[in-house]
Amino acid sequence: MTPADLQRQLDFLKEIDRLKNVVRLSPLIDRSRRENSAEHSWHLALYALVLADHAAGSVDVLRVVKMLLIHDIVEIDAGDVPFHVPATHAGQAERERLAAERIFGLLPEAQAAEFHALWLEFEAAESDDARFAKALDRFQPMLHNAATDGGTWVECAVTLEQITARCRPPIEAGAPALWEAAAGMAEAHYRTRPAQD
Amino acid sequence: MTPADLQRQLDFLKEIDRLKNVVRLSPLIDRSRRENSAEHSWHLALYALVLADHAAGSVDVLRVVKMLLIHDIVEIDAGDVPFHVPATHAGQAERERLAAERIFGLLPEAQAAEFHALWLEFEAAESDDARFAKALDRFQPMLHNAATDGGTWVECAVTLEQITARCRPPIEAGAPALWEAAAGMAEAHYRTRPAQD
Ligand SMILES: [Ca+2]
Repeated sequence: MTPADLQRQLDFLKEIDRLKNVVRLSPLIDRSRRENSAEHSWHLALYALVLADHAAGSVDVLRVVKMLLIHDIVEIDAGDVPFHVPATHAGQAERERLAAERIFGLLPEAQAAEFHALWLEFEAAESDDARFAKALDRFQPMLHNAATDGGTWVECAVTLEQITARCRPPIEAGAPALWEAAAGMAEAHYRTRPAQD
Repeated sequence: MTPADLQRQLDFLKEIDRLKNVVRLSPLIDRSRRENSAEHSWHLALYALVLADHAAGSVDVLRVVKMLLIHDIVEIDAGDVPFHVPATHAGQAERERLAAERIFGLLPEAQAAEFHALWLEFEAAESDDARFAKALDRFQPMLHNAATDGGTWVECAVTLEQITARCRPPIEAGAPALWEAAAGMAEAHYRTRPAQD
């Protein structure tokens, strides 16, 4: 570890402060404002610690937590694209690919490679660790929506069928018991507040 | 893991959403607003991942990250007391003790005990893991202050001697190289902008 390495680490830590200003569509549970991607990442890391026993596969909690802590950093350059607004998704993968190169590239070489590889693993959602991390990333907004009388379900006018089509595969693949809980919450919401057409 | 356990876990995860509304004195690096304790905790967890090689002792990174992710949760009930405003510190330890019992107590018993013990270990700052975590909790605001033309150093009118007295022991104990870097930043700030008396 050289002094230049420490400087690169501090430059990276300063740069990622900007994730605190990337605002998501999801509301806080008290509905006072929308959630930002930094505090969202904190929350997801705690989901991983608390819910690890519900993972489908055998997971390495530290790797899952690392993935969740870094998974949105690319949004500093690429912005957040709302999950339930597919029209915003075009070109996002390429924007995120470039962002990952630039931002992780601020770190000393070995760390840059480690973070970049973890981010790619998360995006691919093929390993047990990544599948569990992805499941949590899809599950948390469902909990927020259920707790805020619909949240982005209402704002984006999605149907129960769309939620099931979009959220069931990733959540069930990583944490089947959490899909069961989330489906119950979504069904309860749509029973009392049917989607408007 | 019973259905009641899962419900307790989800209740805890919902409750801690409130940490996103606990606002600290420290500014974001772009000075657009003050930092909240949830995004601060996210940032510190990344400090731990990136700077682990600078720890004084031999540390278990997962335990350090866990400590940092949960260390401020008590502020949901107890509020944040600014480090450089000692007049606010009276009674805070007791408020945080009660908060830890209530909030960690929302979890299933074994997890409540684990989180509570980790929080106590962090507060005691005696183990290698806790000393490193505490060092980062003191180091990050110094980096923010240096990057914002003084931040809370200016706002709280502290002197370089006060910073050294308050920050050197915890940072040096957990991460000597980081104290060296932080001291350099603080000295550079006070060279160009002497404290007002
Ligand atoms: Ca604090």
